[in-house]
Amino acid sequence: MARTLKPSRHSNRAATDRDALNDLLDEVLIGYIGISLDEGPLVLPVSFARDGDRILFHGSVGSHRMRALAAGAHACFTVTSVDGLTVGRTSFGTGMQYRSGVLFGACTQIEGADKAAALELYTDRYLPGRSAEVRASTKKELLATMVLALPITEWSMKVDVDLPGPDSENPDSDAWAGVIPLFQGVGDPVPNPELRAETPLPESVRGFMQ
Amino acid sequence: MARTLKPSRHSNRAATDRDALNDLLDEVLIGYIGISLDEGPLVLPVSFARDGDRILFHGSVGSHRMRALAAGAHACFTVTSVDGLTVGRTSFGTGMQYRSGVLFGACTQIEGADKAAALELYTDRYLPGRSAEVRASTKKELLATMVLALPITEWSMKVDVDLPGPDSENPDSDAWAGVIPLFQGVGDPVPNPELRAETPLPESVRGFMQ
Repeated sequence: MARTLKPSRHSNRAATDRDALNDLLDEVLIGYIGISLDEGPLVLPVSFARDGDRILFHGSVGSHRMRALAAGAHACFTVTSVDGLTVGRTSFGTGMQYRSGVLFGACTQIEGADKAAALELYTDRYLPGRSAEVRASTKKELLATMVLALPITEWSMKVDVDLPGPDSENPDSDAWAGVIPLFQGVGDPVPNPELRAETPLPESVRGFMQ
Repeated sequence: MARTLKPSRHSNRAATDRDALNDLLDEVLIGYIGISLDEGPLVLPVSFARDGDRILFHGSVGSHRMRALAAGAHACFTVTSVDGLTVGRTSFGTGMQYRSGVLFGACTQIEGADKAAALELYTDRYLPGRSAEVRASTKKELLATMVLALPITEWSMKVDVDLPGPDSENPDSDAWAGVIPLFQGVGDPVPNPELRAETPLPESVRGFMQ
């Protein structure tokens, strides 16, 4: 079995409004966060969850990047879904169909009771209901983890869903043109080798697969 | 038909040497380039091709980002392949299997005869042999396009291929743990609606599908 993740609930993929941004943020698995350090820009991949009007993500309390972000560094958070390879009749007309969102702002650190709740929301974003299937995080685990929130206030979205156009130099060209669809593939869950054969697959994993 | 892109030629996915970086750069479809602008960091997705010891990418000559990069701005170029969702026995032990590469440096602009060659290499990276199937780029197309090269000199690579470990609080837990494999899915090519039914699929598109 190899299947696609659920496509966006909205059929109008050219939209660039807040609903379309939300769909994109809820659909892509990772984003890229950039900060300007003294030594230059740094861009790192990060898993995340959207919680209404903010993005939640976490990292080690010892991380240079996390500490800079917690201290209020300007951040840029970018997500992209590459939805197709556009095969044009020319090299110039060849490219990609994609949806991309770019958020700007400063993060705030989530602490106290909100921290455990934020981590549960993060876990459940990937594996629906997972946080109720496993034990609560220990104090030690929580202390080792920093949770940051980036507000979704300043953002832009760019979408390209165009089909390849005619060749400007040869409008009558009947060469092949089209799109190769691309999607997030998901394979069958692979259990750890030490598991007993009859160990049931959790509901949360079934939820991710649907 | 829904299929995965060719996996890395190397079976040792935990490697972080230059060969492993090359494999990753040749495998992922897009990267993320970050620069530090006066107004803050900016991270944008970009398609690219590896040409030996450099990364080639292009954009509009009118692009703010491209002009800043051409002027020698420090850049960070990051690529990631998310290879699996790691389902741990705890929230803390849940995460992702991934390979990520981060390059640092300043770009140089490619001009003259090298520019057309770089664009052909870029096109052929996605669609093998495509540049020989289509006409050469016109002078006007070349003038509208800026091509930049980032050297692969300063870089780091991080890989997580670990299976989820035991629950530190309950080492005898026999709860399910494992990995959900993730991969780049590729669908059947969709021809433009105006094409004649008998228009053959180009060899380059067949090459991408293999």
